Amino acid sequence: MPESFVHTGFSSRVVFGAGTLDQVAVEVELLEISRALIIATGSARDSADVVQLGLGDRFAGRIDEVRQHVPIERAEAARSKAEEIKADGIVAIGGGSAIGLAKAIALTSGLPIVAVPTTYAGSEMTPVWGQTADGSKTTGTDLAVLPRTVVYDPVLSRGLPLAVTAASVANALAHCVEATWTVKADPITEVTAVEGARALRDGLLAVIEDLHDLDARGNLLYGASLAGSALASAGTGLHHKLCHLLGGTYGLPHAETHAAVLPHATALKAVPRARARLEAALQTDDLATGLYDLFTTAGVPTSLHALGLTEDQLKEAIHTFAESNPTLIDEPALTALLTRAWAGERPAEGSTP
Amino acid sequence: MPESFVHTGFSSRVVFGAGTLDQVAVEVELLEISRALIIATGSARDSADVVQLGLGDRFAGRIDEVRQHVPIERAEAARSKAEEIKADGIVAIGGGSAIGLAKAIALTSGLPIVAVPTTYAGSEMTPVWGQTADGSKTTGTDLAVLPRTVVYDPVLSRGLPLAVTAASVANALAHCVEATWTVKADPITEVTAVEGARALRDGLLAVIEDLHDLDARGNLLYGASLAGSALASAGTGLHHKLCHLLGGTYGLPHAETHAAVLPHATALKAVPRARARLEAALQTDDLATGLYDLFTTAGVPTSLHALGLTEDQLKEAIHTFAESNPTLIDEPALTALLTRAWAGERPAEGSTP
Repeated sequence: MPESFVHTGFSSRVVFGAGTLDQVAVEVELLEISRALIIATGSARDSADVVQLGLGDRFAGRIDEVRQHVPIERAEAARSKAEEIKADGIVAIGGGSAIGLAKAIALTSGLPIVAVPTTYAGSEMTPVWGQTADGSKTTGTDLAVLPRTVVYDPVLSRGLPLAVTAASVANALAHCVEATWTVKADPITEVTAVEGARALRDGLLAVIEDLHDLDARGNLLYGASLAGSALASAGTGLHHKLCHLLGGTYGLPHAETHAAVLPHATALKAVPRARARLEAALQTDDLATGLYDLFTTAGVPTSLHALGLTEDQLKEAIHTFAESNPTLIDEPALTALLTRAWAGERPAEGSTP
Repeated sequence: MPESFVHTGFSSRVVFGAGTLDQVAVEVELLEISRALIIATGSARDSADVVQLGLGDRFAGRIDEVRQHVPIERAEAARSKAEEIKADGIVAIGGGSAIGLAKAIALTSGLPIVAVPTTYAGSEMTPVWGQTADGSKTTGTDLAVLPRTVVYDPVLSRGLPLAVTAASVANALAHCVEATWTVKADPITEVTAVEGARALRDGLLAVIEDLHDLDARGNLLYGASLAGSALASAGTGLHHKLCHLLGGTYGLPHAETHAAVLPHATALKAVPRARARLEAALQTDDLATGLYDLFTTAGVPTSLHALGLTEDQLKEAIHTFAESNPTLIDEPALTALLTRAWAGERPAEGSTP
């Protein structure tokens, strides 16, 4: 039997399929939203136009300007806008930034969100919100921000360039892999994470061949959804904490940092049963090298050095992290992990525990 | 990518592990229940005593008399009792009958339920309620009856006799298998169902060897939980509709009827991808015969004839079902299916589509 565990599952309604953008209006109606505020990222404006048209009388207003990390001024402006137009629901179309802004409104107002993701961040499946003020990011968890309905239309993500796609997939894969070893990891979440990893790997390899492959885009969105669910239930651990330090303190790009760190974190942290299942899903004999090779094949930078981290910053990062996370990892192990990730070395075959 | 689908997931908090009965009081406190009504089936009285002691001041009252199928008089008496003692929450310990009675109270009062299942019915993971009046059962779905917290302690189910265990497992396996082919089936639910089938098969084979094997009991409870989740999301189809007709009209025992019908329904309805995954989980080359052989090994009756259905009743059942479910199956296919199930024949090798 599984070892003792506690599993938290969140309620969800997922509508998936090519052409489901046309279903958004129906989903809005099912939620009894009569005055919808549309929030769209720049690249999703055409899709937002389609939704706006479909909403008819239920459309009440629109925000087309969104920024990464939800700056507090943007959040406050969006809340005012929602009040002003008497919105009773939100449709967020685009990447994590559009969904993040919708969550900021929901956090204080409780308005229901219909999310239409066009990248693989997975935020739409989590009750996690974030907000940035004076360059520092606050995050929290609140059921009020969990989207009520998520509509995945693979057609919408077909235009995403390969570099952005691959980095976003690396991020999603990191959620799946780490979900198997966090303190909140549990067997039910593990199953979701493994299925997500399978779909993400299949989708990534196919999208390298053909960027517009609808089937591949579908696999990636499906995998990203499961990665988001796994993240929501299992939370994060060593890997994500490291990536957030590197991103937050040294400005390294979020998704690419995941690709550089994940193989080496995996070589240290993987747990036996989940490791075997993830290896089967990723069709590799060794999880750490399998991830490294997959990222390399996709052309994602796999060295922190290439992402701009200097050797002095590397030493500082090791020191800072070891000091503030003494129970998570000891300094020699951390030094080995990050030095390899910095150099972009392939993990040794058979290094996965 | 998966075909278009809609997935509904329900919120859940699952606390799993040997000895978790001691955690019930903590979970009650987390839900801010200050006056708990305990409902326990006869066989769970000792466990209920432990919980009652642990609750201390939070214990407000107890119902030890429960009946199958929630007779309406029992439901009304339980509702009065809950009001009388000013209960603000319910702890249900036992099989489906105890949890069913708790759901009847929650349906009209909204009281939160902590469920502690001791059999493999899976009702604790679903928002489905049922009630019987004048010999006829009404069922419905309401989020108010979905238990907030489910505590699975494998120690509690160790005493369940093999015949009861095997039949209850057959019922849970039927939920897993059918969840892959109902009209509401979706790939996310499929993953849950397959994991459930794997655990149920492993647990059943081990419990045949040793009825008190704690590890096996853990696998069975874990599998039953996943089976319940799968049922909650995917609903039921041909197989369950047939079993309900046979149980409701001719009084055949619920769980055993599943074992007799499932292999033959599977031979007709299995869908390719799920079939392959279920076969891997059950370690068989053919899903229909694999299920049949598993039930036979466990000593579950696999013929409707042995369960008491006469040949005339068989003919009547075929006719009634075909008339009232014209789109689900045609009469020749139904006749073949039920005639095989009646005779208890092993499905032909390779009969799974």
